[in-house]
Amino acid sequence: MTQIKPGSKIGILGGGQLGRMLAMAASQLGYRCHIFCPDVRSPAFHVAADFTIAEYGNEDALREFAESVDVATYEFENVPARTAEIVAQETILRPGAKALEVSQDRLVEKDFLNSCGVKTAPYKAFETQEQLDAAYKEIGRPSVAKTRRFGYDGKGQLMIKARKDIDGVMDVTKGAPSILEGFVNFDREISVVVARSASGDVAAFPVGENVHTNHILDTTTVPAQISEVIEAKAKVMATRIANALEYVGVMAVEMFVSDGSGEIVVNEIAPRVHNSGHWTIEGAATSQFEQHIRAICDLPLGPTEARGKVVMKNLLGKDILDFETYLSDPKAYYHHYGKQDPRDGRKMGHVTWVNTDE
Amino acid sequence: MTQIKPGSKIGILGGGQLGRMLAMAASQLGYRCHIFCPDVRSPAFHVAADFTIAEYGNEDALREFAESVDVATYEFENVPARTAEIVAQETILRPGAKALEVSQDRLVEKDFLNSCGVKTAPYKAFETQEQLDAAYKEIGRPSVAKTRRFGYDGKGQLMIKARKDIDGVMDVTKGAPSILEGFVNFDREISVVVARSASGDVAAFPVGENVHTNHILDTTTVPAQISEVIEAKAKVMATRIANALEYVGVMAVEMFVSDGSGEIVVNEIAPRVHNSGHWTIEGAATSQFEQHIRAICDLPLGPTEARGKVVMKNLLGKDILDFETYLSDPKAYYHHYGKQDPRDGRKMGHVTWVNTDE
Repeated sequence: MTQIKPGSKIGILGGGQLGRMLAMAASQLGYRCHIFCPDVRSPAFHVAADFTIAEYGNEDALREFAESVDVATYEFENVPARTAEIVAQETILRPGAKALEVSQDRLVEKDFLNSCGVKTAPYKAFETQEQLDAAYKEIGRPSVAKTRRFGYDGKGQLMIKARKDIDGVMDVTKGAPSILEGFVNFDREISVVVARSASGDVAAFPVGENVHTNHILDTTTVPAQISEVIEAKAKVMATRIANALEYVGVMAVEMFVSDGSGEIVVNEIAPRVHNSGHWTIEGAATSQFEQHIRAICDLPLGPTEARGKVVMKNLLGKDILDFETYLSDPKAYYHHYGKQDPRDGRKMGHVTWVNTDE
Repeated sequence: MTQIKPGSKIGILGGGQLGRMLAMAASQLGYRCHIFCPDVRSPAFHVAADFTIAEYGNEDALREFAESVDVATYEFENVPARTAEIVAQETILRPGAKALEVSQDRLVEKDFLNSCGVKTAPYKAFETQEQLDAAYKEIGRPSVAKTRRFGYDGKGQLMIKARKDIDGVMDVTKGAPSILEGFVNFDREISVVVARSASGDVAAFPVGENVHTNHILDTTTVPAQISEVIEAKAKVMATRIANALEYVGVMAVEMFVSDGSGEIVVNEIAPRVHNSGHWTIEGAATSQFEQHIRAICDLPLGPTEARGKVVMKNLLGKDILDFETYLSDPKAYYHHYGKQDPRDGRKMGHVTWVNTDE
């Protein structure tokens, strides 16, 4: 596999906080980063050697960008297939197109996960009313109707709690390819952040436990309140998924855990560094951002152990203005993403508490 | 004191590895950095939001730079007085001009240190042959003749081991204001990296022990092999110096320690983040770079304790190419400054080992 040596150039599609933190980690290892993003106000531009402001459909700009770097990666899973194709023609793209294909379509993703021997919620594809009725007969309720592509934070989704809720589904999916997904009873949500290098080495971070508020991640706590057996099983599942995808880079696998039965169901995969891995910056021996750079550059993967009990909390909107509180706390590490406008619900930064005594 | 809130703009004079690591630390707190440096190939440009390529004597460029930022700082002590003056007219300059005045002139520095009640090597100023002879009569040998200003890494210096060495001094100093400095017997060199915030809070890092090879820092080890009493005394001395300068930012104080007598002599001060403080990035609770940013922005200073036994080693020239070795070592943190040309003796990066078991 091609090794990309420190001092080389790394291209990153996407200029948000994930691209920003990737660029910062890459810089510590001596890489020069080039950010490609259509948004003039991308926070990643401020920590990178070069940037291109252009749409993801601008093929000339994409080619020029890709030619100028030694390897390219991305910070978001909705990179259009054509964008990935062009970049891959001109440079090494890691992770590759397969990770995008699988994670962009809920049906393909669930079929793939089941083919890996990993359990998901029950699901059934539909497009028409007739297919929906058949799917409902199989899946029942409670369940959730979701379009197959490009949904996030609860958009393009409808909960089916009562029989009559089915009548509203076609208004939401508008005839787009969709799935009806059965409801899973679970006690906690966990995520496994796992890295696989270009040479095929795999390393998983300790499992984190996530709490969401209003569909947005609020906190990740490490260690998760799960048994050693569940922890080990979850890591094995994530590793199996990464290997089956011949994945290169860091990915996150979100899972639901039932305490009683010990059952683990995979909710979704994100082919990128992930909010639920931010705790690793100070809380683990290697950060997920450096690990991603090591993986895509085919450097040795770093150690992954946690430095103690770690809690990461997102700072949304005006939460970011409480910097005095966090900077006065000797256990807290305050991160500000350099975004100007602290509007409600926007991810503006995060804070991580590392308690090495526990 | 004026607080510079996260999200504001920080200007940095100097674009080397110190400016680079300052910019990276500032970015994590959400600051946008603007680097001013005459060198087109400055490694700090690659991690900053803005940069200006201009000479330090270019007053228009300096004014424009200074006007565009909320606070300015520097990564090297030889900032010309006029440069500092212009920047200070247009924005807040921290540390201030006094730190530069004192550290740029060996005579002023030693007079100042003695006025703080801190011991230095014996010294005597001279310019002419006659004054040199008088100085020699007082200081004796072994001793070192040094020009007062702009010497570094042994340049502009001559060792006086024998009586006849005096005859060569005027050829080296060329009539420039100079000092003859007595030789100090010591067992180890230590440095104290200390921060003083705009509000006057002071925090010293644990004392590091330095080993130089060919006048260039090779390693810094924490803890230093000194008693608790010496450690405490050294910190008190550094604190006294920072307070006497009404210093704002991080500074390093280099000292010589005699094990037998326990005597501590201050060698020199550096009004900036310092190579002997690089170990703090992973080895201390707060890095010297973040601490400098906190100090100049008048944020609360961070905790300074070490995370274990720490060793920092500079990677000079082609040492930087051994990345596989360091990245394969689970206790090692490899830093590459992004410089292209690994010529002999050039500081290309460093590696830090943190051993939390000790």
